[in-house]
This record gives sequence, structure tokens and C-alpha cells, in this order.
Amino acid sequence: MRAVLLLACPDRPGLVAAVGEFVADHGGNIVHADQHVDPVHELFVQRVEFDAPDDGAALRDAFQPVAVEFGMQWQLHEPDRRARAVILVSREGHCLADLLGRVELGELPMDVAAVISNHDLHAELVQRSGIAFRHLPVDDAHRALQEVELGAVLDELAPDVVVLARYMRILPAWLVERHPQRIINIHHSFLPAFAGARPYHQAYERGVKLIGATAHYVTHELDEGPIIVQDVTPVSHRDQVDDLVRRGRDLERVVLANAVRLHLEHRVITYANRTVVFD
Amino acid sequence: MRAVLLLACPDRPGLVAAVGEFVADHGGNIVHADQHVDPVHELFVQRVEFDAPDDGAALRDAFQPVAVEFGMQWQLHEPDRRARAVILVSREGHCLADLLGRVELGELPMDVAAVISNHDLHAELVQRSGIAFRHLPVDDAHRALQEVELGAVLDELAPDVVVLARYMRILPAWLVERHPQRIINIHHSFLPAFAGARPYHQAYERGVKLIGATAHYVTHELDEGPIIVQDVTPVSHRDQVDDLVRRGRDLERVVLANAVRLHLEHRVITYANRTVVFD
Amino acid sequence: MRAVLLLACPDRPGLVAAVGEFVADHGGNIVHADQHVDPVHELFVQRVEFDAPDDGAALRDAFQPVAVEFGMQWQLHEPDRRARAVILVSREGHCLADLLGRVELGELPMDVAAVISNHDLHAELVQRSGIAFRHLPVDDAHRALQEVELGAVLDELAPDVVVLARYMRILPAWLVERHPQRIINIHHSFLPAFAGARPYHQAYERGVKLIGATAHYVTHELDEGPIIVQDVTPVSHRDQVDDLVRRGRDLERVVLANAVRLHLEHRVITYANRTVVFD
Amino acid sequence: MRAVLLLACPDRPGLVAAVGEFVADHGGNIVHADQHVDPVHELFVQRVEFDAPDDGAALRDAFQPVAVEFGMQWQLHEPDRRARAVILVSREGHCLADLLGRVELGELPMDVAAVISNHDLHAELVQRSGIAFRHLPVDDAHRALQEVELGAVLDELAPDVVVLARYMRILPAWLVERHPQRIINIHHSFLPAFAGARPYHQAYERGVKLIGATAHYVTHELDEGPIIVQDVTPVSHRDQVDDLVRRGRDLERVVLANAVRLHLEHRVITYANRTVVFD
Repeated sequence: MRAVLLLACPDRPGLVAAVGEFVADHGGNIVHADQHVDPVHELFVQRVEFDAPDDGAALRDAFQPVAVEFGMQWQLHEPDRRARAVILVSREGHCLADLLGRVELGELPMDVAAVISNHDLHAELVQRSGIAFRHLPVDDAHRALQEVELGAVLDELAPDVVVLARYMRILPAWLVERHPQRIINIHHSFLPAFAGARPYHQAYERGVKLIGATAHYVTHELDEGPIIVQDVTPVSHRDQVDDLVRRGRDLERVVLANAVRLHLEHRVITYANRTVVFD
Repeated sequence: MRAVLLLACPDRPGLVAAVGEFVADHGGNIVHADQHVDPVHELFVQRVEFDAPDDGAALRDAFQPVAVEFGMQWQLHEPDRRARAVILVSREGHCLADLLGRVELGELPMDVAAVISNHDLHAELVQRSGIAFRHLPVDDAHRALQEVELGAVLDELAPDVVVLARYMRILPAWLVERHPQRIINIHHSFLPAFAGARPYHQAYERGVKLIGATAHYVTHELDEGPIIVQDVTPVSHRDQVDDLVRRGRDLERVVLANAVRLHLEHRVITYANRTVVFD
Repeated sequence: MRAVLLLACPDRPGLVAAVGEFVADHGGNIVHADQHVDPVHELFVQRVEFDAPDDGAALRDAFQPVAVEFGMQWQLHEPDRRARAVILVSREGHCLADLLGRVELGELPMDVAAVISNHDLHAELVQRSGIAFRHLPVDDAHRALQEVELGAVLDELAPDVVVLARYMRILPAWLVERHPQRIINIHHSFLPAFAGARPYHQAYERGVKLIGATAHYVTHELDEGPIIVQDVTPVSHRDQVDDLVRRGRDLERVVLANAVRLHLEHRVITYANRTVVFD
Repeated sequence: MRAVLLLACPDRPGLVAAVGEFVADHGGNIVHADQHVDPVHELFVQRVEFDAPDDGAALRDAFQPVAVEFGMQWQLHEPDRRARAVILVSREGHCLADLLGRVELGELPMDVAAVISNHDLHAELVQRSGIAFRHLPVDDAHRALQEVELGAVLDELAPDVVVLARYMRILPAWLVERHPQRIINIHHSFLPAFAGARPYHQAYERGVKLIGATAHYVTHELDEGPIIVQDVTPVSHRDQVDDLVRRGRDLERVVLANAVRLHLEHRVITYANRTVVFD
């Protein structure tokens, strides 16, 4: 079986050896290993991908004493188990279409359990791919109601990842907390610049020479969650707001797909509102 | 003679033809021409580089009626005339050293009339290149005095461009106004993100995946002047603040040198706090 | 009516004025204009986008004398007329899926008249979008026959652009000549490096730190046509051939889509096996 | 003491544990560790940076049995020991000036023992920095003689790194073999594209949209050594050969300086004509 161990703990001598011994003792062979020491937070972070004869449950039991000894936060994933995703979208469908295309072409190792939207614009596109489409319209007077419905659907679907593919509503804190480090958002700007609404208009007004996009985990603080991927593209005075929007869409597609892939491959560890991305 | 005409005026039919005729009527040949219409501001902006038998003064006289007819803001430059530069620097010398190296290698068509600093750290580096070094120390109790001195030195030197090569003091508004669109600053971040002090510490805290640098004209509003060049470089969790600073320095060097070159080649027009860069 | 005039001719004084006058004389207003002088080939190249009361036929008639006087190669396009595209594909569907998604989202101003493939793998994907799918299988013993069939289908469809979206067959010279500057190919490498087969294996073997993709017009010389767009992405020792292929696909999608857009917006002029891209 | 251990050996279980134990047994603490398994070559490659009470000689003795057991190729470096560099240059001085500037500013942890050139153009620039300049002119009739002289000077100076900062002569195989993985060259193109002379002319002729630079270790095969760093920059039809040269120089400066830094920080391991760069 292939396993991926992600861990974080206070830095101290002997950590690499201890994890190496654990794998060797269980007849495993390390395929990739990557670690990082954050000297500011005195934290040791590691990702170990290994092949082992035991199954996930046995390995988890066996690792528990090691984790306790070193005070580790840890997860052991089985990457061959296919992930279950839910995609949320509003009006703009370019990220949704891109993700569905990648899943169909085998580029993202996930099954899309459902696409949920506050609009019904993309119902046909989704259903054509044989995926369930859930329309949860928002009535501003009953906003909390839609959130409760959304929460119930997510509870029922129990996804490994929730992808906000240009879902233009803020999720309530209680809902975010039920899916910690599992909700990925694409922000259509180079955070922290141009947080908030209409970033391409802001970018145009400021006359910037580069625009960007940011994929991040959602936390209860708007636009402030740990950043997974960022990228930029050059722009010039020739680019009107429409051009910025178009160029931005190409960024958003690739940045979001990349963040989802890194998450699905268990390459991202978060702490102190930042990510370690072992890519 | 080679001439560069920069102009901006309200957009209306016949502008391209009128400028083309002006050049043709004076026996000139257009070598490069580039124009841009800003549909939001309904503004026509043009850069025309041409060879002509007349000298600059004659061409300026001849163009005046065309400019009046169309309500143009305009300048006519003679690019073969070498520009006169003054460089301001504080403690960090990497941009200064880079600029002096480029001037020596013939990459920047300017003569450095003087380097001015509030520290005397780089006196030797500067004098070794045969360039005058002016030490204008700042005493916080007499800050205005140093600014007056600085203003007087700049008046005396009458530079075509003032380069703030990591000069860490804010220039007073009256001094900026005496050198409009002639003072270029390198901001060690990707504006508008991380304006203000210690941007690499801010970038580290926010856990960004890219850092940037911005070269801009100085206006009386701190960090808010028209942007000339921006660039970014990828960073990761492996980069501590020191690494960000080091990577940032490489960006700053190239971004500032590039902005100075574009300015010296008369490729930048500003309006509405933005630039058109005809590169 | 909006019109786009593309022209190339020997450089000489008065060209910009002559075109500007032509537009003004016909009541037109120039929206964008961009020109370039190639000093090596002594060639003047211009793109003028303008609004005019006359229709395309009238403008073409009126421009003919100007073109003759200056010895111009020229085209006058009506960008509001929607282009007709044919897409060719073999086994790998990522570029096809990306292009169809962009057309559906309104990002590419074209109608796809048909998708043609030597395999039937992507029939369902295409038909699901309501587009005709033509399966023209290749039998190596009768290769010329398939080419004749393909030529006939293209003659019948009369496309404005033929997009080779990872079509892994070489087109015969006679077919290329029937669609000059209208066939766009995506080459899955940074040309001229790694021309030929299996470029990602070549890139891996050479241990490069960047991989690239190139979109170019097809000419009778394999991989040698004028380049429209190129881009690269960083790779490292961690990337096996599979990773290079995956990263390459993201490049190919965006590079090809961008080249098709530039072509559809009449922003590309070719001469001497090179392009001028007015973007 | 800070130590950096670089090693490569056939992959097998227990490697990470064995090295981790070695460090722990000697009272050391791992600061950074990074490893890579090349599945094609079945090779394990590791860089471990650690603090230990013992000195380098003691650690080397102690590690020898571990290395023998696993069949390791290995080196143990003491990064606090300052490296000794020799720079070779011909006519173009931009990389030389950039490197000297960085050394002076403390950005590259090396002392330049001498600059050697087949021209005397840059003697003053070098001597002004208090560095020895050796002029070894080449007379084509006595080319081998100069090579012998150069070899003797290098033997005498015993450098940790030899930087070819645009040294336009091919080094003889015997000289390269005396300094294995210690000679770094900057190639002024994106290898493998445009190997050989005048790459910017080649790039212009081919009409590429990006140009690049490559820093690599020198081997006896011209332009074929393991690549350390590559980078590119976008160009357009507006760029004549002179512009390509200028933009290329900015790339060359940064790419070469970066490769030298990675080498000095012992972040590069080579095998099978490729590098693993732990950056």
C-alpha cells in the first residue's frame, strides 16, 4: 500500500531518524520525503510518502506512540483512495468548466459528488457530465436559510474537498469550521493586494503592470486564509478592464486546479495561517 | 537628427494623420510610432520616434500650431543628448552598485552628476568610479534643514532624472513638485500589497508564494505614484525573511534599472496617476 | 462598422499619414493603431482598428489605390463577423476540451463547424456540445486517401481557422498551401529546442529547469512555421516525465487558446517566417 | 559547527533512518534536510544541513562506515569556511561587474582570488576592487600554450569554484577534468536551443517570443554539461538583435549569480549529466 504521512511538531534532534525507523520497522520503503524546519516557530514539518505491506489502520495504530512521544499533529493518507469533491459556483463558469474537464481527462484524482450553485446557469453543463447539480438560490431576506441548507447538503455528501470555483458568497463561520483545511477558494487577485470586490477594476485604477490570482484555504476571516498557490501575468496600458478579466480567468483556472491537485496529493500542511507546500 | 515626440490629448478623428503629416512635411521619416487610446478617459496618447533634418528648436516651433489645434500636452526630446542623473541612496547599496555598473558598461545612456546619501557608507564605491559623492546626514531635530540642502543641491545639478536607489526618506512635497515625473523610486514590494515599512517581513507573515518589486514615479502621496515597472519572483515556505530580502534585491536591481532605461528612452507618458509605457 | 486593416509594405516616409488620411477621409475614427518598422527587412507593418460608416466592401474598394501606391500586402477584416473554426485532434483531448469550454463561455469569438479526428475517442465530448464530429481514421497503407478526405472536408467547411489541438499527423504540403496562415499548431515544447517526437522525454533526459510550449502557423516545413505564442514553466529534479507532461498540458492549453484568440482578433501579421503580434 | 552532507547512492530502505541516526548519535541537530529518489536511475540523493559539536574531520571519519555500508558517493562541507573563487572573462564585462558587486555587498560568500582574462579590457575594474587581474592573451598559433598557463594559474590558486563569466574560449578537456563539478559557465541562450555562437542572432532569425540563459557545469562536451539554473524573458517583434542582447544580459547576470550561490551553499548534486538542486 502507498501511504502519505503528514506531520508537524516542535523541532528537536532525532525526529528524522525516528520517522525513518518507523517506516523501516514496518517493512516500508520511503519513496519521497521532504521536511522543513521553521526556525521562527521552532516547528518541524514533514511529508513522507512510502510503500508498506500493512494497511492504513494498522499503520495509524503503530504510529500513535511515535506521535505521542514527539507531540506531533499528524495525518496518514492513502493516496490510492479516490477523493470525493463538491464544487460551489455562482455565475462565472470558467473555473467550473476547467475542473470538470480535468476530472474527465484524468488530471485530478477526484470524483465530483455534486456541483452546488446559487444560480441555475450551469445546470446543463454539469448534468451533461453526469454529475448531480444542486440549485440553492439565495434570497437576501432568508440568507441564513440557504446556508443551513448548504450545510446540510455538505454534511450529507461528506466531501474530502470543497472547491469554491468562483462562488461569490461568504460562507458562515460555523460552516467553515465543520470542514477545516478542506475548503479551497480562488481569489481573483494577488492577495493581499486588491482584497474585496471587483479587483480587476481596482487593478486598472491603480495602473498595475501585473495582475494575479490566489488559491487559499477558507478560514473565518475573509481573504485571510493560508495561501496555497499564487501566480501573476503581465499586463499593460493596452489592457482595459475586460482584458484584465480575461487574462485573470486564465490565471484563475490554472491556479485553482493546481491548488486542488496539491491538496488531493496531500502536499499541503498548514500552521500559523501559512502553508508548507511540498511540491 | 533623431527626435522623440510624446503627446497626449482628447481623442478625435484625424490625430494620427495630423502627426504623420507634420513629420512628412518636415522631411522626416518615422522610425517607430506607437499610440494608445484610453477609452475610459477618451484620451489619445502617442510616441513618435523620427529622423529629421531640422534641429530640436526648429521642430518645436513648427509643432506648436499642431499642438494648439488639438489641445495636446507634449514634449519633444532629442535622445542623442545624454541625460544627467542624480542618485539618492541610504544604507543598502545593491541598486546603487548595479546602476553604476550599468552606466560604466554603457547600458544606461546617462551621466551620473552626483550620488547623494544620508549616510557615508558608499562614499568609496562612488568616488572610485570618479563620481561626486555628497553626504547630507539627517538629524531628526533638523530634518527640514537637510531637505532644504538636498533641494539646493538638486537645483544646482538640474538633473533629467533623480533615482531613489533605496533612499529610505520621504521627500517633502515641495521638492517633488520641483521635479515632476523625474523622480523614480524603487519600492521593495509588489504595490499595492505591503506598502509601508518592512515589506519582506509582511510578506513572510502573510505566507505569500510570490514577492515583487515596483518602480514608480514619486508623487506627494507615499507609494501611490504612477507605476512604471513591476516584477515578481516565486518564493516558498523554505524562504525565511533573509531569503526574501535576497531574492527581493535581485528583483529591485532589474526593475529599477529597467524603469530608469524606459524613462531615459522617453518611453513613458503619465496621466491620471497611471503610465503608458511604449516598450 | 468596426474594421481592422492589416498591412505590410516597404518602409518609406508618409505611410502613417497616408493611412491616417484614408481613415479620416472616410469619416472613420481610429480606435487602436500600432505599427512596426523592421529595420533589417526595411518593412513597415501596421494594424489599424477603426470605426467607419461604410461597409467592408466599400472600404476595400476605396483602399485599393492607396495599397497600390505603396506596394502594400493588406487585408481588411470585419471583426464583428464571427469566425468559423475546424479543430483537429488525435488521442490527447486536453486542448480540445479547453477550446470547446472557452467557446461555450464566450471567450473565443468563433463557431466550431466541426471537430475532425483520426480516432473516435472524443466523439462523445464533442457531440455533447452540439458540434459535428468527423472520424477520419488513418490506415498507414492508405495514408494519402485520408489526407484527400480531410482536404475535401476542409474545402467544404471553408474555415477561417484550422486548429491542430494535438493532432499528431503531419499535413501534406498541398493541404497546408490551401489554407495559408490559417492553420495553427500547438507544439508541445519550447521550439526550437526539442523539435520532433517525445519532447518531454527529451527534456527529462537533458535535465532542463524549464519546459515550454509553442503555438505557430503551420508551413510545409515541420516545426518551422512562424511562432505566435510561447511560454514556459519552471520544473525541477522532482518532476518525472509524467509531471513534465502534466505541467506541459497546462502550458499547451493556455498557449494554444491565446494564439487562436490573437488570430481571431486579427492581431498577427507574418513575413519572413516570423510574426508581428500586435497584442 | 555547521555541516552540509551531500550524498547519492542506490535507493534502498533504511537510508533516511541511517543518516538521521548518524547525526543524532553525534549530538547533532538537523536544520534542513531534503532528499530525492530518482525512480528511473533508482538513486537516492540527499542534502542534510546540521549543527554538531564535532569538527569536520571527526565527522568525516565517523561517517565513512555508513557511506561504505550503503555504497554512497558523498561530501561533507563546512559552509562557514569561505570559498575561494577564480573568475574568467573575455570582452563582455556585465557578469564580471555583477559578481564583483555582489561579493562586495556580501551577497556571495566567496573571496575572489583572481580574475583571469584573454583581454586586458577589465583590468582597471578588477584592480579597483583590490583583486588580482591576470592577463593571459591568446595567440591562435600558440593556443595550447595559453591553456597550459591558465592550467598552471588555476593549480596555484586551487579555487573551490571557477566562474566563466562570459569567457568565450573552450577549455581543454584535461583542464576541465582537473576541476570536476567546479567550473560554472553562463550560456547566453536557453539550452538546448541555440547552442553555439551568436544565439541572439539565431533567436532573432527564428522569431522566438522568449529568450533565455542557462548556467551549467562545464564538462568536456561543449554546452552539454549539467544544468544548474535556467530562466527566460519575453521578447517581441519590437526587439532587434541589440535589444535581445540587452535583455539577455540581465538574464545572464541573475542566472549566473544564482548558480554560483547555489554551488557555494552546497545545494547542487550532479549525476547522469543532470543536477538535483535543493533550493
